[in-house]
Amino acid sequence: MSGPWVTYRPELKVLDCTICDGGLINDHMFEDGLVKAVYQATVEAGLDYVELGYKGSKKLFSRDKSGGWKFCDEDDMRRVVGDNSTSTKLTAMADAEKTDYHADILPKNQSVLDVILVATYVHQIQVAVDMIKDAHDKGYEVTCILMAVSKVSEVELDQALEVLVGTPATTIVVVDSFGALYTEQAELLVKKYLKAVEGTGKHVGVHMHNNQQLAFANTIEGIIHGANRTDSTMAGMGRDADSSTTELLIGFLRNPKFNLRPILKVLQDHFVELREHLEWGALVPFNITGLLNQHPWAVMKLRGGQDKNNFVDFYDACLGEN
Amino acid sequence: MSGPWVTYRPELKVLDCTICDGGLINDHMFEDGLVKAVYQATVEAGLDYVELGYKGSKKLFSRDKSGGWKFCDEDDMRRVVGDNSTSTKLTAMADAEKTDYHADILPKNQSVLDVILVATYVHQIQVAVDMIKDAHDKGYEVTCILMAVSKVSEVELDQALEVLVGTPATTIVVVDSFGALYTEQAELLVKKYLKAVEGTGKHVGVHMHNNQQLAFANTIEGIIHGANRTDSTMAGMGRDADSSTTELLIGFLRNPKFNLRPILKVLQDHFVELREHLEWGALVPFNITGLLNQHPWAVMKLRGGQDKNNFVDFYDACLGEN
Repeated sequence: MSGPWVTYRPELKVLDCTICDGGLINDHMFEDGLVKAVYQATVEAGLDYVELGYKGSKKLFSRDKSGGWKFCDEDDMRRVVGDNSTSTKLTAMADAEKTDYHADILPKNQSVLDVILVATYVHQIQVAVDMIKDAHDKGYEVTCILMAVSKVSEVELDQALEVLVGTPATTIVVVDSFGALYTEQAELLVKKYLKAVEGTGKHVGVHMHNNQQLAFANTIEGIIHGANRTDSTMAGMGRDADSSTTELLIGFLRNPKFNLRPILKVLQDHFVELREHLEWGALVPFNITGLLNQHPWAVMKLRGGQDKNNFVDFYDACLGEN
Repeated sequence: MSGPWVTYRPELKVLDCTICDGGLINDHMFEDGLVKAVYQATVEAGLDYVELGYKGSKKLFSRDKSGGWKFCDEDDMRRVVGDNSTSTKLTAMADAEKTDYHADILPKNQSVLDVILVATYVHQIQVAVDMIKDAHDKGYEVTCILMAVSKVSEVELDQALEVLVGTPATTIVVVDSFGALYTEQAELLVKKYLKAVEGTGKHVGVHMHNNQQLAFANTIEGIIHGANRTDSTMAGMGRDADSSTTELLIGFLRNPKFNLRPILKVLQDHFVELREHLEWGALVPFNITGLLNQHPWAVMKLRGGQDKNNFVDFYDACLGEN
């Protein structure tokens, strides 16, 4: 009937978070070759941002148990990206209460990073406010990731948005941590965030998970209703079932600055093999936690055990948690 | 933020087409035990319709190369469903020009089937009209599946709908054969079909494929805009990447007559093992044919060969077909 839409919105920017989100299923133990391939693919594909991992606290996490991409030290990053003399900006995520941001986030002029993504649950928002200010004062572009919004009450969310609008964060992201949102709910949230940032020049982003196979659809829905920042991962790699995939998103967007081939290349060269060792995707137990709006920790426990395919018992156990 | 929607639409009816669509990847060679398990799960889950397979022509297809569910002979069906003394209606699909419908579709009072699904491409619609009339005259409820609508021009579609509205088919289904439709396009099509059937008492259905991970989202979109018939398969089993999944759909619908547990049970008892032998899902090459609005035959050829993961060359080859 109708062909694909043929226009595009130049201000729409794409962030690939494969290494950051994917790191949650392999303890951030990526080999340099893979990180380099993902980074180069994002550059060649014309993506706007690439997220390399976390700025995790070395007091809480050790390099014995977590790979280097849990910490994003300058040496590790520069070994892969050099000085990043490209137009793709580098980002890393700092989790509220899990980062020593005062010490570990260097002044911008000493770092290859361009953007700090501050991730927070709603109850930690005052910590996040200080983190946002710290990163901004050090010279970074700052984005705020307000996690697990499907669990946040309307009143709390309104208050949180009011607080965040008063910070120097330039983007606030609608995050469906549990893959629980149906598309109409994604629409309502994007509209609410847009209203909150109206007149401030700030952007609204979307970061959707695929527990119910709705990550890509919800990302498109966010875009349609005015979100100008999107997050996605190659092959949908990620802990919470998976994410919106970068390859589907680039296929959908009509901006000629984006190229699909470099992403397909890295998928065939690296992700086919990666899938042989690591499990991710919208498996039935992830469907269930998404449906019930729950954190997927129980799925990870289930899949490591003998009863990994006992979906009925798992459903009943999850129902007991609601 | 918002909890799940809590109301439901009683007139919304669900068809499970696992055996029919799934049969396209194993030449319809399901063992009776699996068919029985799927059938019983649909009954226990409270689904409205279960589709058992095709009414394929025995002149075109042989029982050496295709399993019994390609033909849905009475003996085969009754071995599994008995007389089907349940409220779940039984259906089978008849493809225009691939069925000897005059002979092979028995009068309703001699068959355990309740509904005939007549599938047609737009250029075969006059054949379909005769098939619809034949099935209706024999006493069946008839649904028309107008395939590959993403390739049909606006003018052709308007003409086709006008023809179908004049037949005794009680449901006309929006079918995204290639998994090419974005959600806004699904919305436009459902609205167009609804307008075409306005005042006739006919229903509009949706049958979506998952090449771009949009099958479930497009099914929900169809429901929101007034489609009252949905098709889906367990585990999304199907040839064209896969379909909207019955488990996600039943999770989404709030009608208390539906039960999720029987479906989860059949998934854990049968589909985990089935996946070990058969490949389906929204693999990258299916993403590509969906994006390019093409039949997935090339994917099936690709996946059977040595270069099955050469996504870049496959993309370029497909581009040459557009």
